[in-house]
Amino acid sequence: MRDFLPDDVRRREYVIGVIADVYRRYGFEPLETPAVENIETLLGKYGEEGDRLIFKILKRGEDGKQAGEADLALRYDLTVPLARVVAEYRGQLPKFFKRYQIQPVWRADRPQRGRFREFYQCDVDAIGSTSPVVEAEICAAVSDVLQRLGFADFTIKLNHRQVLTAMLDVAGIPAAAHGEVLIALDKLDKIQAEGVRAEFVQRGLPSEALDRILAITGAARAVTDAHGRPERNAALLAQLGAALASHETGRAAVGVLEAIVALSAATSAHAHLALDTTLARGLSYYTGAIFEIAVPDLAGSLGGGGRYDNLVGMFSGEPVPAAGFSLGLERILVVMGERGMFPPSVGTVHADVMVTIWDAATIADALAVARELRDAGLRVDVYPEADKLGKQFKYAASRHVPFVVIVGEAEAARGEVGLKDLRSGGQTAVPRAALAAAIRDKMTG
Amino acid sequence: MRDFLPDDVRRREYVIGVIADVYRRYGFEPLETPAVENIETLLGKYGEEGDRLIFKILKRGEDGKQAGEADLALRYDLTVPLARVVAEYRGQLPKFFKRYQIQPVWRADRPQRGRFREFYQCDVDAIGSTSPVVEAEICAAVSDVLQRLGFADFTIKLNHRQVLTAMLDVAGIPAAAHGEVLIALDKLDKIQAEGVRAEFVQRGLPSEALDRILAITGAARAVTDAHGRPERNAALLAQLGAALASHETGRAAVGVLEAIVALSAATSAHAHLALDTTLARGLSYYTGAIFEIAVPDLAGSLGGGGRYDNLVGMFSGEPVPAAGFSLGLERILVVMGERGMFPPSVGTVHADVMVTIWDAATIADALAVARELRDAGLRVDVYPEADKLGKQFKYAASRHVPFVVIVGEAEAARGEVGLKDLRSGGQTAVPRAALAAAIRDKMTG
Repeated sequence: MRDFLPDDVRRREYVIGVIADVYRRYGFEPLETPAVENIETLLGKYGEEGDRLIFKILKRGEDGKQAGEADLALRYDLTVPLARVVAEYRGQLPKFFKRYQIQPVWRADRPQRGRFREFYQCDVDAIGSTSPVVEAEICAAVSDVLQRLGFADFTIKLNHRQVLTAMLDVAGIPAAAHGEVLIALDKLDKIQAEGVRAEFVQRGLPSEALDRILAITGAARAVTDAHGRPERNAALLAQLGAALASHETGRAAVGVLEAIVALSAATSAHAHLALDTTLARGLSYYTGAIFEIAVPDLAGSLGGGGRYDNLVGMFSGEPVPAAGFSLGLERILVVMGERGMFPPSVGTVHADVMVTIWDAATIADALAVARELRDAGLRVDVYPEADKLGKQFKYAASRHVPFVVIVGEAEAARGEVGLKDLRSGGQTAVPRAALAAAIRDKMTG
Repeated sequence: MRDFLPDDVRRREYVIGVIADVYRRYGFEPLETPAVENIETLLGKYGEEGDRLIFKILKRGEDGKQAGEADLALRYDLTVPLARVVAEYRGQLPKFFKRYQIQPVWRADRPQRGRFREFYQCDVDAIGSTSPVVEAEICAAVSDVLQRLGFADFTIKLNHRQVLTAMLDVAGIPAAAHGEVLIALDKLDKIQAEGVRAEFVQRGLPSEALDRILAITGAARAVTDAHGRPERNAALLAQLGAALASHETGRAAVGVLEAIVALSAATSAHAHLALDTTLARGLSYYTGAIFEIAVPDLAGSLGGGGRYDNLVGMFSGEPVPAAGFSLGLERILVVMGERGMFPPSVGTVHADVMVTIWDAATIADALAVARELRDAGLRVDVYPEADKLGKQFKYAASRHVPFVVIVGEAEAARGEVGLKDLRSGGQTAVPRAALAAAIRDKMTG
């Protein structure tokens, strides 16, 4: 877990600001949940590995001593807390509850590039509708975010859990083996068909099944280049439709993917959507469409999501449809940092002007000048101690503060203050009442 | 610990926005630290009660099993993490590091009004100077925050740890009994002098010592009304100076309080500062001036702070002076909520306009219109399903969305869309290219 020094925080706040602004334009509303949840709320929602990576909090005994067991845990993602909230506050929430949530989550994972034990997720989720409009809007929102941040080369990989299931059914894989087959297929890009075939043999799975799966996914599989994605999506959908024609839920799932792709034609996601029939997503709660964002220069994803129509029901007892998308703040920051994508407006200077302290007699006057400049909206640092002026100038320069104000007795007697421009080195006497305007002029001039 | 639904979050974000803006105008820079610290970082910094209230995180064994002991803990405040950061990054930080930090902290406390187990602190701290300019600037920043939020009736109680110590020394209280005497004195407002006297007797402390203390604090003690504070401060300082004339560190501490009061004359804190010689502050790390904010309608404080010149040294080995102030977000929100202090700009409506879905054939067109409005900066919700228009209007009205857009086939053929004003009930056909401007006109008109 890391500390974020001022320059880090300013970059984080810039990205979070863009994300929140786009999410709000899509009509999503802010939600915040506590860092700590009851441990039962979290266990059994993320699969076996997820359960193992949950940070558990020691129970506090009645006498203030520790009981040695855990009753609370740190939030592992923002989706399960949302499901709990939807179940808990159903009566207070609108029929179609669309929320965004930008908060940290914690996983007791081994850290790697862009992957930390504490990291921020930036989630949008829409509750209450099974319509593919939900998925299309979510993909569009995420595309808008990435484009506003300056990404042009991202891919939103798209698949459907029921397409995966149908594909394996049709290929003759027994349901009990679906999990391990998906783990092997997920590596297709990395270890190629022959590597996957070796894994099939090792796990005692029929090699012919792999041939059938490869025939279905075919040549149109996972396209990561930017050209002709819509055409490839259309070709792959036709191919999938034919291969799964005999499989009822599979056929319906292909129809959902077709609808998402068609609706996205009018949105910013259009050129970025790429069907990928090997995309599986790790979390166990997904039930329908699944997404993942890839960029060429990052091994992991910038985010992912999908439909999870059964998760709220695990808390409320009645099914409530839902779908969402989660952007990983840290990974976005890693790529933006490496590519130098931050605009100059993400500043590194902490103050527009520094007020120096001349001597003990004029400190109160210096604080009064600082107040006037702050009231005018400027960011004003005050050197805290009476010290040699040269040392104070040097300090301001070392911090890249462009202007320094000198409140001396002689100037004060004339109702003036000294204004030094550290960029040019020039110093002028300015009537105190005109000081803020003079600084603003020089800032913009 | 609580969930914050959208209206809650919007109010929280408004207050946090004001606080961060004021802190930035004072030249403070943002810092963020992880929620989780090594447990040794936290233990022994907050006094005995503090140690007991720290949430401890179960150690994860090598094999992924739990070891039953705790090596990590949830942050208890933002000051100790800052001290650790200053020690850890000393070389990267400026000589006078001024940071603000607005993050949650956790205490395994019994919840009460405005007091929760997870709550946000909004801290400013200035590192590297012993000058009373630091305290004056910090009190001014906090005053600016409260005034911008609409508070007029707050008091910044001011005292000094060394004044307390000197007062008890001069009164003849042995150093070992200082702690319990301060706890008793702290209740002077609640249980009056006779109640405190009973506690003195019960604890076997000399009753004459109380008389001497009351003589020092005298009639000018803790003033909570708004009139004549500067005059009372001056009277109390003179009285303290005389009473502690023979006590070297006490005399120096009175000098510091005089300087803080004098420097504050030019700041927004001027009319709010009130010396209170019984103010003690619970945390054990304070070494100099201490502050606490009181408002008439809250038993607890809105925030507090002080100077802690030894805390950084506990991590770095060398002394680094520091002082700061912490505002409690939740308590500010409680009082603002009860008094109805939130401005109308803190909205409760999630979208400026809702786009309806006419039928399956026009959904993609509806999404395209939504995109155009969002690109124009409007917050746009889309009804997710093709449904009766009346039902969609009703839904928008129930959510207080003022405008609804209808993308029907007939209008589409003419390059128009329907725009319904739900406030007046009127509906007009608007050229699609002029839609965003038409909505903006109606919003402001």
